[in-house]
Amino acid sequence: MEAKVAGSASMSLGDEIVRRINALAAISETSEHLTRIFLTPEHRAAADLLMTWMREAGMQAHLDAIGNVCGRYEGERPGLPCLMLGSHYDTVRDAGRWDGPLGLITAISCVGDLNRRGRRLPFAIEVTGFADEEGVRFASTLLGSRAIAGTFDESALGSRDRAGTTMRQALTLFGLDPDHIGAAARAPGELLAYVELHIEQGPVLEAEKLPVGVVTAISGATRLAVELRGMAGHAGTVPMALRRDALAGAAECIVAIEEFCCTDRDGLVGTVGYINAMPGATNVIPGMVSFTIDIRTAKDSYRKLAVADIVRQIEEIVKRRNLKLDINVTHENRTVPCAPWLKQQVADAVAAEGFHVFELPSGAGHDGMAMIDIADVAMLFVRCRGGVSHHPDEHVEDADADAGARVLLRLIENFKPKA
Amino acid sequence: MEAKVAGSASMSLGDEIVRRINALAAISETSEHLTRIFLTPEHRAAADLLMTWMREAGMQAHLDAIGNVCGRYEGERPGLPCLMLGSHYDTVRDAGRWDGPLGLITAISCVGDLNRRGRRLPFAIEVTGFADEEGVRFASTLLGSRAIAGTFDESALGSRDRAGTTMRQALTLFGLDPDHIGAAARAPGELLAYVELHIEQGPVLEAEKLPVGVVTAISGATRLAVELRGMAGHAGTVPMALRRDALAGAAECIVAIEEFCCTDRDGLVGTVGYINAMPGATNVIPGMVSFTIDIRTAKDSYRKLAVADIVRQIEEIVKRRNLKLDINVTHENRTVPCAPWLKQQVADAVAAEGFHVFELPSGAGHDGMAMIDIADVAMLFVRCRGGVSHHPDEHVEDADADAGARVLLRLIENFKPKA
Repeated sequence: MEAKVAGSASMSLGDEIVRRINALAAISETSEHLTRIFLTPEHRAAADLLMTWMREAGMQAHLDAIGNVCGRYEGERPGLPCLMLGSHYDTVRDAGRWDGPLGLITAISCVGDLNRRGRRLPFAIEVTGFADEEGVRFASTLLGSRAIAGTFDESALGSRDRAGTTMRQALTLFGLDPDHIGAAARAPGELLAYVELHIEQGPVLEAEKLPVGVVTAISGATRLAVELRGMAGHAGTVPMALRRDALAGAAECIVAIEEFCCTDRDGLVGTVGYINAMPGATNVIPGMVSFTIDIRTAKDSYRKLAVADIVRQIEEIVKRRNLKLDINVTHENRTVPCAPWLKQQVADAVAAEGFHVFELPSGAGHDGMAMIDIADVAMLFVRCRGGVSHHPDEHVEDADADAGARVLLRLIENFKPKA
Repeated sequence: MEAKVAGSASMSLGDEIVRRINALAAISETSEHLTRIFLTPEHRAAADLLMTWMREAGMQAHLDAIGNVCGRYEGERPGLPCLMLGSHYDTVRDAGRWDGPLGLITAISCVGDLNRRGRRLPFAIEVTGFADEEGVRFASTLLGSRAIAGTFDESALGSRDRAGTTMRQALTLFGLDPDHIGAAARAPGELLAYVELHIEQGPVLEAEKLPVGVVTAISGATRLAVELRGMAGHAGTVPMALRRDALAGAAECIVAIEEFCCTDRDGLVGTVGYINAMPGATNVIPGMVSFTIDIRTAKDSYRKLAVADIVRQIEEIVKRRNLKLDINVTHENRTVPCAPWLKQQVADAVAAEGFHVFELPSGAGHDGMAMIDIADVAMLFVRCRGGVSHHPDEHVEDADADAGARVLLRLIENFKPKA
């Protein structure tokens, strides 16, 4: 790979990106585990480092009202509408170093490359480091991109973190004014498009042996909370025929959900990630079980049908077992399709760099889910090892980081606003 | 029921037993939830109250070296071997009031009845309140009965409760000498038999519409700890076909265990009471699941075959799903059969009191499991409402407490040592 691109500008980009990924990963709550939570001192230190890199790349840089890092590289003349690039710079707890920072740092490095070459385009480029995509600290996610899209819900300011600090207090401590978050909102006419590069966080590109992939849509998701109530009892004294075992019922539901999704041919995924059986003792028949269901697919109408089918199956199981059921939708978000005109330009850039054009949906959520309210959205995925993400083992090969940068740079230089 | 037995001595026994059950239940760690744990101040207060009642019943009473409450009612002459009656006076957390105390208080009241009538028998009667049957505080159970049977494991003295206190320290604080627990052991020749009355803790007698039942055996049990390891992953990004979901695998195992036990015709019961899925987030495919299995039946050879069959099924499921399995037996106890000669005397007493003789195994463990090492054992079960036990709703009807007392008193008065 190195030989193939030796001497090209993008080769040095790849090196720079990996170096910066490592530098940013050193800014963490603890030195053993990468954790960088919204509005903490390390979050602020990371913002400062990102702004330094932005300025080195020839951009103006500032923090907006919610803590987004905003860099702007003017076009052929000042004040032109922008192509916005970006990703988030907060992390989950005990995170990998690539989820978020790869897209952000790659965008900064691409701009730096243009700047070194004195290249100005017929549009501005803005790079945004979104302050909170993971939603670890407060109850809501996508806080940074929602503020930019003008859809930030001010009632979230009253929500508290585990220590009891409100978002309002945290913003003030960070040096921001919680009464002026509206100032972060952008006018739709200022943005020509939003394009995000991100690690795939799944194993599909690896299975396809491809460094990059073109995202078709960010899949919609429905999350359900299920509670089954039966009758607790002594594990030794209640004959099988007299039991109303809530965990055996939940197990049958989990098997049914998996089977339903596995027989699907349209990319439906269903996950039970959390389960709790009460009272939870070896020698007591569980009287109550709660579990969650997460259902995703790239077509909203299809997801809704699937959820209804799954709920119907659970109702049948529960009725047959004489259990009580409480089932609620706790979260629902619609599919965000990537704009065909923009997705085509991403695909063209992939092909121009010599890679097979492979399309896939994003099962994970991204800032594009909020940005769709203010601009057309597209995404480029970069392969990550084993599909592992949200884990210290998260890894992107140097060559893949470089491939992503080359595609993104090609996309920027060839970008044509929507006709 | 009252009309039927009005004026008999045993009627007043029933009233006295229920009154004492309620008085003992007031001695608890907290006033809202009945909790009386081994070697706590409330455990000591309960022991004192029990000894008061024993002395009122004409017995000598003392605490032995492990904290068992020991009462002795001499026979026709001092120093005769005894028929030992008893049950435990510790409780689980948030317990019912009948589990343990019913058998102990009924035995005291029966002796009190003999004493009021000046009745002496050709054998002594001893009533033992076992100090720790539930094993809530330290890792081991049956501490009281093991000490009497001479099978107490002295290494348990080093085990610690949640607060870090060792059993040795707790015994000392209670006023006992941990270096002389051996003094609690009885010689086999001192005991003619051990008979325990206990609530059923299951729903069988209720289903049979019978106040009492004759126990055939205390079922042996095998407990297993199972750990399945797959691959954690993002709930949105990993296609179903590429998953190694440890919870879906565990669910299939739980369904298989239930099905296996349900198709059995010989009283086999299997329970998964505890489950934990890691990392346990709505949007993460579980990479690791641990759960427990509890298997019981009244025939040891049959239980072993059943455990082997279940393990084989789990191995097949795990292999097909490409998961890693760690499965270990964490606890195993053999079936304790009730001695035929003694069980027959219990059955005769049941019949003499006008009840249908119904036999059933005990799926729950009892002090008889330890006492078998020093004496032949039999048990009489009393119906409990809904089969509920280890719960504040645990309940025995007054009439059933009375029925149990009449049967036990009849058994004592007609008792014939083994020929």
